[in-house]
Amino acid sequence: MPSQFDPPSGTRDFLAADVERREHAFSVIKSVFASYGFEPLQTPAFERLDVLLGKYGEEGDKLIFKILRRGEHEATGEADLALRYDMTVPLARVAAAYGSQLPIPYKRYAMGSVWRADRPGKDRYREFAQCDLDTLGSVSPLADAEVVAAHHDAVAATGLTDFTILLNSRRVLTGLLTAFSIPPEIGAGVLTSLDKLDKITPEEVAGELSGRGLSAGQARELVGTLTAPDAVDQVRVALTKTDEGTAGLDEVDAVLAHVSGQIPATRISFTPRLVRGLSYYTGPIWEVAASGVAGSLGGGGRYDHLIEQLGGPAVPAVGSSIGIERLLVLLPGTDDGARARLDLAVTVLRPDLAAQSCAFAAAGRTAGLRSSVYLGSSGKLRTQLKWANDTGARWCVIYGEQEQQAGVATVRNMSTGEQIQVPADDLGGYLSQAVGSGR
Amino acid sequence: MPSQFDPPSGTRDFLAADVERREHAFSVIKSVFASYGFEPLQTPAFERLDVLLGKYGEEGDKLIFKILRRGEHEATGEADLALRYDMTVPLARVAAAYGSQLPIPYKRYAMGSVWRADRPGKDRYREFAQCDLDTLGSVSPLADAEVVAAHHDAVAATGLTDFTILLNSRRVLTGLLTAFSIPPEIGAGVLTSLDKLDKITPEEVAGELSGRGLSAGQARELVGTLTAPDAVDQVRVALTKTDEGTAGLDEVDAVLAHVSGQIPATRISFTPRLVRGLSYYTGPIWEVAASGVAGSLGGGGRYDHLIEQLGGPAVPAVGSSIGIERLLVLLPGTDDGARARLDLAVTVLRPDLAAQSCAFAAAGRTAGLRSSVYLGSSGKLRTQLKWANDTGARWCVIYGEQEQQAGVATVRNMSTGEQIQVPADDLGGYLSQAVGSGR
Repeated sequence: MPSQFDPPSGTRDFLAADVERREHAFSVIKSVFASYGFEPLQTPAFERLDVLLGKYGEEGDKLIFKILRRGEHEATGEADLALRYDMTVPLARVAAAYGSQLPIPYKRYAMGSVWRADRPGKDRYREFAQCDLDTLGSVSPLADAEVVAAHHDAVAATGLTDFTILLNSRRVLTGLLTAFSIPPEIGAGVLTSLDKLDKITPEEVAGELSGRGLSAGQARELVGTLTAPDAVDQVRVALTKTDEGTAGLDEVDAVLAHVSGQIPATRISFTPRLVRGLSYYTGPIWEVAASGVAGSLGGGGRYDHLIEQLGGPAVPAVGSSIGIERLLVLLPGTDDGARARLDLAVTVLRPDLAAQSCAFAAAGRTAGLRSSVYLGSSGKLRTQLKWANDTGARWCVIYGEQEQQAGVATVRNMSTGEQIQVPADDLGGYLSQAVGSGR
Repeated sequence: MPSQFDPPSGTRDFLAADVERREHAFSVIKSVFASYGFEPLQTPAFERLDVLLGKYGEEGDKLIFKILRRGEHEATGEADLALRYDMTVPLARVAAAYGSQLPIPYKRYAMGSVWRADRPGKDRYREFAQCDLDTLGSVSPLADAEVVAAHHDAVAATGLTDFTILLNSRRVLTGLLTAFSIPPEIGAGVLTSLDKLDKITPEEVAGELSGRGLSAGQARELVGTLTAPDAVDQVRVALTKTDEGTAGLDEVDAVLAHVSGQIPATRISFTPRLVRGLSYYTGPIWEVAASGVAGSLGGGGRYDHLIEQLGGPAVPAVGSSIGIERLLVLLPGTDDGARARLDLAVTVLRPDLAAQSCAFAAAGRTAGLRSSVYLGSSGKLRTQLKWANDTGARWCVIYGEQEQQAGVATVRNMSTGEQIQVPADDLGGYLSQAVGSGR
């Protein structure tokens, strides 16, 4: 049962180990994006409600967290603001607002929380991080390849190795429908069914396709082609008969060629059955799959009309979203309890020695060590050594009456128990050396 | 007039230069906090409404952004969640929720946005960053000193030099009221008036004090003592006559002694007239003042009962809040337009040379350079060199038919115009060296 002190349903408190793990991954990914010349953009946590409403379909609108009007208007029960639902609508607004101030092309990344009033579940949250990179204002296939390569490098930089990129193009799919003589008016529905090839059996998909108006033979042939061991070869042959299919293949091959110096060939493959649910894609599409995770580690594609549809200027665009919450699930964690909180713990054995103990801690920090004096109420060495041990510190500085008289500090190695006396005014130098030598 | 594409009133979009400036300051400050052994804590952007309501007084309650209930409950016009108003109430909730899992003492920092529906104005926002550090569970004056020193070091680490810390204690103020025979029942009001000594003249403050029930002589004497050139000496003499005043002086002197090895003596001073508006402080209080900024760069103090009052456990606490938005105003900025977006710009002079150009950009990234290929539609070298120049890149890699045939890349130094040919497969090595030597 949730306690009154739990965070709101679907949200999380992150204690130290979790924050550090998340921020490390975020920082690694940001470095990769920056290395490609993508720039950061930060927009507010909320937007005006009318900016968001109607952009995510009827179901999406229901999941928007709306903010009540304030002051005298509060009693109306109306909302005028809403929490950010994704990073794309704010990007469209920014492109409209700052158009001429932005570089062309505008390559930006955005990383931060978004909020959706979904029913919370395992690994499904109402507040979660999104991490998007997009290039606005370039129709070049190099822009597509750059986004794919940056997505790849970002995932690889977090330490994950066992993942692959599935690559396709919306135009390949359109060509495929033409090649299989599927009437355009049921094309969208057919793609929706094909998108399920990962989740249900080929037979079930073929059944769905028959329901959508394909003949049993047509449905079996289409599904058979896409799931055959040599699906890629079969599709390539089929596509060369159509203009759209040929154009799609060119798009796929251009991306493959342009990333060939950056992404190992085993990590990326033309995958004709990849649909990606979103209908706004207009060119190449891709998805990152990893073993050990249901669903994808994100993906993206070219969406040349979406920014305008979302209220922005008419600019071509391509982007990718890293499934950062899923990625974090795959990365090794640290147990909060087992984590070292300090490198250097400094005893405070008598009030009149405290100022010197504080100075020792400061010397530790100067040497690059996380350092703290004892803040408890006991004057006993044993109690303070137990505290030092609990913090996980590598060293403890002991400074009592004896040390004061001798003008030294005792440095205790907390793993070996070994103790050494160091001139008080040379503690910083000693610690710097110790850090370097791993003593 | 605000455009429909502006962010909501009181909020800001941060483009690249601003994000980088802010994140650099945040990162520097976090490093300082971590070096003291403070741990990060991140709580959700919103809390349950009942967790926040009633914690900030009647005026504060009005400034809370409330989130409308969802689904079938939306029509009620009621709110059940609210955006975080500060970092202290979430800390109290976390202390209650995770009590036994948290280290003792629990030293945490929190950095992130808070939201207040204040009337927006110059340097006053509805979404702004807060940066708090607090120690829960220690009554030691060393904990106070540690928070003061960490606040000092964090401000100094951002590069600011012209600032001072004003130090006082609530018990000094209480002792002062006793020493001046001011009836306890009007003490709070007297302190409220004294708090204005920075904003209005001593005569005006004395006038207010008379209005509160002090005799004209009493008021003049009190204000005169606090504003005299030797105020500190006069107050010290007056305080030694009262128990509370003596205890307050001991607190102040303990902090001064413990930070003496860390904070230059010119940067911190006992300031008896410092009141800090908030009535919840119970011991030492401090405020950071900087020339060129109205108001303070933050401050804090000991507040031994607040966590319990806010719904947390009964733990002593001390904390400080860095006025990070004001601090950012004082730090030198970078003009977004003048900012280099790339280190290395790579031309794409023909589609069939593009894959090699991409590989050159990848080599640049491996050498630690922000690198991008040209994503525009022109095949002309002149246009691409103009693009390279616009990005602020230090070098441009030119790769055309001649270079392809010779197996080289031409590296152009964008500031000197000097060009050198480098074997194509050694570009990475050349760039690494160039970065090191500043070529």
